[in-house]
Amino acid sequence: MTTQDAHARAQNTADAASTANTADATHTTGAIGSHKGYLDGPRADIRVPVRRVHLTNGQDVTLYDTSGPYTDPAVETDVRRGLAPLRENWIIQRGDTAEYTGREPRPEDDGLKHTSPRGGTLRGRGEEGDLRGLDAVFPGRPRQPRRAREGLSVTQLAYAKRGEITPEMEYVALRESLAPEYVRDEIAAGRAVLPANVNHPESEPMVIGKNFLVKVNANIGNSAVTSSIEEEVEKMTWATRWGADTVMDLSTGRNIHTTREWVLRNSPVPIGTVPLYQALEKVDGKAEELSWEVYKDTVVEQCEQGVDYMTVHAGVLLRYVPLTARRKTGIVSRGGSIMAAWCLAHHQESFLYEHFSELCEILRAYDVTFSLGDGLRPGSIADANDTAQMAELDTLGELNRIAKAHDVQTMIEGPGHVPMHKIKENVDRQQEICEEAPFYTLGPLTTDIAPAYDHITSGIGAAMIGWWGTAMLCYVTPKEHLGLPDRDDVKTGVITYKIAAHAADLAKGHPGAQHWDDALSDARFEFRWEDQFNLALDPDTARAYHDATLPAEPAKTAHFCSMCGPKFCSMKISQEIREQHGATMDEVEAGMAEKSKEFAAAGNRVYLPLAD
Amino acid sequence: MTTQDAHARAQNTADAASTANTADATHTTGAIGSHKGYLDGPRADIRVPVRRVHLTNGQDVTLYDTSGPYTDPAVETDVRRGLAPLRENWIIQRGDTAEYTGREPRPEDDGLKHTSPRGGTLRGRGEEGDLRGLDAVFPGRPRQPRRAREGLSVTQLAYAKRGEITPEMEYVALRESLAPEYVRDEIAAGRAVLPANVNHPESEPMVIGKNFLVKVNANIGNSAVTSSIEEEVEKMTWATRWGADTVMDLSTGRNIHTTREWVLRNSPVPIGTVPLYQALEKVDGKAEELSWEVYKDTVVEQCEQGVDYMTVHAGVLLRYVPLTARRKTGIVSRGGSIMAAWCLAHHQESFLYEHFSELCEILRAYDVTFSLGDGLRPGSIADANDTAQMAELDTLGELNRIAKAHDVQTMIEGPGHVPMHKIKENVDRQQEICEEAPFYTLGPLTTDIAPAYDHITSGIGAAMIGWWGTAMLCYVTPKEHLGLPDRDDVKTGVITYKIAAHAADLAKGHPGAQHWDDALSDARFEFRWEDQFNLALDPDTARAYHDATLPAEPAKTAHFCSMCGPKFCSMKISQEIREQHGATMDEVEAGMAEKSKEFAAAGNRVYLPLAD
Repeated sequence: MTTQDAHARAQNTADAASTANTADATHTTGAIGSHKGYLDGPRADIRVPVRRVHLTNGQDVTLYDTSGPYTDPAVETDVRRGLAPLRENWIIQRGDTAEYTGREPRPEDDGLKHTSPRGGTLRGRGEEGDLRGLDAVFPGRPRQPRRAREGLSVTQLAYAKRGEITPEMEYVALRESLAPEYVRDEIAAGRAVLPANVNHPESEPMVIGKNFLVKVNANIGNSAVTSSIEEEVEKMTWATRWGADTVMDLSTGRNIHTTREWVLRNSPVPIGTVPLYQALEKVDGKAEELSWEVYKDTVVEQCEQGVDYMTVHAGVLLRYVPLTARRKTGIVSRGGSIMAAWCLAHHQESFLYEHFSELCEILRAYDVTFSLGDGLRPGSIADANDTAQMAELDTLGELNRIAKAHDVQTMIEGPGHVPMHKIKENVDRQQEICEEAPFYTLGPLTTDIAPAYDHITSGIGAAMIGWWGTAMLCYVTPKEHLGLPDRDDVKTGVITYKIAAHAADLAKGHPGAQHWDDALSDARFEFRWEDQFNLALDPDTARAYHDATLPAEPAKTAHFCSMCGPKFCSMKISQEIREQHGATMDEVEAGMAEKSKEFAAAGNRVYLPLAD
Repeated sequence: MTTQDAHARAQNTADAASTANTADATHTTGAIGSHKGYLDGPRADIRVPVRRVHLTNGQDVTLYDTSGPYTDPAVETDVRRGLAPLRENWIIQRGDTAEYTGREPRPEDDGLKHTSPRGGTLRGRGEEGDLRGLDAVFPGRPRQPRRAREGLSVTQLAYAKRGEITPEMEYVALRESLAPEYVRDEIAAGRAVLPANVNHPESEPMVIGKNFLVKVNANIGNSAVTSSIEEEVEKMTWATRWGADTVMDLSTGRNIHTTREWVLRNSPVPIGTVPLYQALEKVDGKAEELSWEVYKDTVVEQCEQGVDYMTVHAGVLLRYVPLTARRKTGIVSRGGSIMAAWCLAHHQESFLYEHFSELCEILRAYDVTFSLGDGLRPGSIADANDTAQMAELDTLGELNRIAKAHDVQTMIEGPGHVPMHKIKENVDRQQEICEEAPFYTLGPLTTDIAPAYDHITSGIGAAMIGWWGTAMLCYVTPKEHLGLPDRDDVKTGVITYKIAAHAADLAKGHPGAQHWDDALSDARFEFRWEDQFNLALDPDTARAYHDATLPAEPAKTAHFCSMCGPKFCSMKISQEIREQHGATMDEVEAGMAEKSKEFAAAGNRVYLPLAD
């Protein structure tokens, strides 16, 4: 425990329940049902944030924390200045990177200086005023981009292969309660990635791999139709508050560059993107006008900004496109459909595939992690596990080997829509073909019939695929297939996927998982309602639901709730049985007859007065 | 197609989309995104209701329908008169039952004439006025109860064993698209139940068994703390509207008898109860004052009213109670904890176990189905699959054999809280020990950490256990562990469980399952938005979510949505690729080079004008 932590503890223990209760349920600052704590690392500048839930019985429960400095009352945050560059010294001290004069930002990076060739009334706010992007330029401190010195590999994979344990690895080892050497091994083997662009020093290191806690990604991003920069930054903070381990910025409208800058400078978690989306904006939405040059320019632009991982749909080969012709829902990956259109228009092999080695060289210079996209993932139950999907997976296996040879960290994306009985085959094949590289799946959705509830149709598949070895789950919100998620949808999506991830951790037998369930169940059995709320994945909603029927303060200590009422509370009866019949099996078994007499002598009181 | 159906069709086809859209999202009458239809059976009085979704492309999709006459505009319903006694003639024509003068209702059936021995301020509305129960007596037509003539077995199991195919079996065969003989076989073997009390002729026959569609139960019921009779009837109608196959009335406060009468007379689905709850009310909440006599009186009372299945916690034996002493959350089944308290207080074996054969005789006389309760089910991840739970399961296996020998239909209840990797063992053991009797599980919840989201923690487990052979899933609402579900919670719970059940049907490869997913995915790929909404499990919410960002009417025919906007809609690009490159694999493969030239000649137009 750090001094600051101890101090905070001393101040807060007494009134834990009440202070934990004060944060407004819509704020993005202030801890939720808990207090910010830090685990001290082997060096002073390694301090791993945790959520500490101070229980009313005096115990502490320590939980993984993705919410960044926003939940630390000792840190003042300002979205216009960005977060402190936590990792900057580690990166500088390695001495293998250098600052340089980066690519000059250009108006087209934000989709400006283009007149839309198409009419139509459905334009987003971003498209209305061409000056908006320039007005919104991130006002924080300027920073020159940094990249590897000529010929050097500056990736966590390269360090791990060389046997070096970086501060980032120390950090995640502490965060996951594992030995640093184990973390290094997993990264060196390509079984785990630690996405950490040298130009995103604000990020708190985290690791993605099947032998670690299952991670959750939340997507944000404005589209051409709706939403703004401020909303996206807010969504990022909101998503990490509820547990998102990484965030992908999938913006496709105007102001892509500027939105991303704001998001990166304020993000405590790794940020992922799909560079193809911005590249397509640069050629005014005409897929056939895409080229390696435009794409490469976009990748460099994003590497310099600090994007930590990039989805690259390099597995969509020309010869695979016809395999989708008989599908029920064709190609449902945006990137996949764009590349398919390009391949057919030119009747050429994908420029992403052709230039993949060159792309590796670029990503290596910044330690950007590949997320090899599954451009041919199934978009319906009917299309699951088909020839097109499996053909692409073979190519992703080939690309994974090339990337690893270039010291570039790599994960592999997966489906999509898959019925339950076809899920396991996806992980098993991916793990075999891609040499256990981390699998990163979207859901999968286990049925197509429930638009507006696809967080649930996919949460089912996500939990299962996580159990079977998927390392990170990409969330799905209730608005999937229907519209752009708002703040509430983001929260619902993240919470649903944290449930799936934790259920998977339990099923995998992760040693750091069940203590949370146990602490909550203890609180439930002992009617410590405040502890039950504060330990909940979403304390605000748990408390609100309880209070909806029993709002009065005495109900927070009552030995029942409105669900069953006082006479039918099984927990209460069970607790009384235990109190009156002995706490241990031996006592109960040995003294059963005796205890029964005592119970009768005590007036057979199964129900205590309400007031107790 | 019946004449009436054809008539309705002729009237409605033209304006299908608009009329389907008119029902108020909060109403309990009027069809949702569909039209009521009927499948004609082998005799005129067998007409199986279905939801017919008339698509804008002229096709029809037929879906299973649990909503009863409330969604048939040709039927006038009146909650004060109850539903028509659909099965009455079938029951009478069998000639093996007779009306008799039933047990006289007594004030204590509604928990009246008791002065509560305990003080306290947390009393429900029902407890305030003792006259309320009498005022609320169901005003519908009086009906004498009916039971088997002396010595006869009048259960669907007895008929099935004798080789008789009843109209009820014909009905469910049509409903499940299976041969009547197959239904009879499954029931005769005890692998399926058809809950149908002779005193609940209003119910539409349905079947529960692993070789049929997975079913969903919704719980309703007032508690001592909150809610009213009207609310419970409304919740029942609301739950069946969204797909509940059966409803359990778990009322525990005052007016239990009267509430149940209203629910039964208006319910198109089988109604289940836990008679122990009412029996406990009759002895003023003192578990040790329960007796076989009070319990038996309550069972007869409920048999006469028409309860279709009853949860009986006869497997909680005296010697099993100490096995729960070391548990994290003790006994979490209400019935289980009540019986455990009774056993310990008297230091006697459970009166339910001791009198089980006598109970079988009673249930057989009305064709009430046993739902053998798992009183020792785990209430936390820590307690899953423990000795107590498995010991009780052995006893349930014994009781199942006794019930079957008495010709009483039987299903077996299951957990509870179980991590994913321990779920399959539950079904496998239950199926082995209970000779494949239908398994009926509560969830299971796959983690304890998410109060307020336990519909999701349990929906995950429900889908999996359904896939592995559970026949009916008992829903869990967002209020589980926190309070009494309201109308919105009931809907969320039912929809979540319909997702789980359907995902299970897909995974089991049920031949009647995937056509629904396919129809919805076709509509999605072809941008038939209205069809997509109407085919959704919840058309109202799907439409509302779409309209939240793109409310204008043209957006209902747009080839994109606000999620990705027009340029990034993969479905649109994919569809255009298909249109321009040939619809079949052969064409595309054979003519790839040719098609590429054509594509270029057509101006490489991947994006069509917005106005198209």
